[in-house]
Amino acid sequence: MQRSDAVQQAAAAASCPCVREVIDYMASCNGIYQSFGIETLEAVPGRSRFAMRVRDDMTNSFGTCHGGVYFTLADLAIGFTCNSRNERSVTAGASIEFLLAAKTGDRLIVEAREIYREGRNGTYDAQISIDGGPVVALVRGRMRIVGGPVVPA
Amino acid sequence: MQRSDAVQQAAAAASCPCVREVIDYMASCNGIYQSFGIETLEAVPGRSRFAMRVRDDMTNSFGTCHGGVYFTLADLAIGFTCNSRNERSVTAGASIEFLLAAKTGDRLIVEAREIYREGRNGTYDAQISIDGGPVVALVRGRMRIVGGPVVPA
Amino acid sequence: MQRSDAVQQAAAAASCPCVREVIDYMASCNGIYQSFGIETLEAVPGRSRFAMRVRDDMTNSFGTCHGGVYFTLADLAIGFTCNSRNERSVTAGASIEFLLAAKTGDRLIVEAREIYREGRNGTYDAQISIDGGPVVALVRGRMRIVGGPVVPA
Amino acid sequence: MQRSDAVQQAAAAASCPCVREVIDYMASCNGIYQSFGIETLEAVPGRSRFAMRVRDDMTNSFGTCHGGVYFTLADLAIGFTCNSRNERSVTAGASIEFLLAAKTGDRLIVEAREIYREGRNGTYDAQISIDGGPVVALVRGRMRIVGGPVVPA
Repeated sequence: MQRSDAVQQAAAAASCPCVREVIDYMASCNGIYQSFGIETLEAVPGRSRFAMRVRDDMTNSFGTCHGGVYFTLADLAIGFTCNSRNERSVTAGASIEFLLAAKTGDRLIVEAREIYREGRNGTYDAQISIDGGPVVALVRGRMRIVGGPVVPA
Repeated sequence: MQRSDAVQQAAAAASCPCVREVIDYMASCNGIYQSFGIETLEAVPGRSRFAMRVRDDMTNSFGTCHGGVYFTLADLAIGFTCNSRNERSVTAGASIEFLLAAKTGDRLIVEAREIYREGRNGTYDAQISIDGGPVVALVRGRMRIVGGPVVPA
Repeated sequence: MQRSDAVQQAAAAASCPCVREVIDYMASCNGIYQSFGIETLEAVPGRSRFAMRVRDDMTNSFGTCHGGVYFTLADLAIGFTCNSRNERSVTAGASIEFLLAAKTGDRLIVEAREIYREGRNGTYDAQISIDGGPVVALVRGRMRIVGGPVVPA
Repeated sequence: MQRSDAVQQAAAAASCPCVREVIDYMASCNGIYQSFGIETLEAVPGRSRFAMRVRDDMTNSFGTCHGGVYFTLADLAIGFTCNSRNERSVTAGASIEFLLAAKTGDRLIVEAREIYREGRNGTYDAQISIDGGPVVALVRGRMRIVGGPVVPA
């Protein structure tokens, strides 16, 4: 499946430091990034990876990781990836599929990728896995690119 | 749009106390219910309502309520509503549409409703509003009814 | 779950003939409406119903009604319902859940309803049933209201 | 994003003729494949491509290709791809995003890919483009693998 030209151009500039700068800025002022203890692993144009450890205060009534925590981690990864070109954007909607339950103590890895970006619309996919283990959830997010810089000049 | 027979039968038993008992049990052992400060407002067969106040540690990088917090609140409401007949079920997947941004301090109200339930499958809708204000998000969840009691006998 | 003010206002004008006029106009110039043999049953503000009989040329490889035919019928009902105020709109996206397989000869009934409409965005739900029988599919559509009249002046 | 082991194993056997045999069998008994004039371009384990020309009887009320036709083409491609290991499966649900309108006479190309497959569940993505032109729609389908052979022994 072909990626958009935008991704291909961006990929050519994969060593550009600004993607990571934008993501570090976003992390610094994001309540969830901090309260969930999220960690940035990698950030290149059109793709980024984050990690998070499941805690007892993130569980559902059956003692496994709450589906909302999966979604939040994926939505953050998608949002950061879309905003990382320093063009402000917001999630318009998303869908998630739950595949496996993670437990307290599991380290989750999320990877988000740009699938399509054109004008004011972007589609991004995220995949959550247990570190070194199976895929536990798949998310597709629809982004609306509202414009303006993410990092203040 | 007609509801399933199951809902109609359940509605006939709307004064039954067990729905609220199941939901109170689920709340008592749910990490997110407690860490997010969620409050149960109403619980009848096929429908329930919850409230939650947006806190600073629930924001995104633009200072508004993180979309993952909306989703988590809705997923919890859907899960509690589906499980409230004391038949164990899990979310198989869901989709969300983000309509408006809520701010720190806003009180969110979520209402979940059963739309369809047949065999091992259920479809539930949730709507999140700012208390006394506009709708901010719509969620549709697909539940898999795995069976067995929710509240241990 | 509350409907938008727009629906409530529209409901007050439920006897207005223009909803049906817009839908009849749309039907008259819609290739799928004609090639699928769709029939308009009812059209009031914020809600409409259509019928269609499953034919042999609408089947999948297992001999039952193709899921794409379900989707097409629901998307048409949603689109007609959203456009029926004579304000041009297009489907931005949709999701479908398949519940039961219909067979050749079955008469399908679809009912679409407005759930939310504000500014340029609308959310509409459709439910497909076999006439006099069970629900076979649920669809949620996201509409973008692009504006301009549907019926030329 | 990593593919499932199943896809990787399947990819190793990419020259196996049976994938194409299953797809040709499915095409031979599929009402929509024939009535929509769909053509099989390529079929390897975990991926396949089809083409279809938009006709006047496939249009919406604005004279462009009906969204239901996009969905049908994508659903067929996803279903054929998932069934192509000769293990019977059905679409449980799907979501679609509409990006651009195609016109009568446009030749649509759809490519479906396996994203995840484990036990009875599979996730497949499809992308529709105008031949030699832009992407017009993205679809994600959830498959339920019900088992049993597709091609009778």
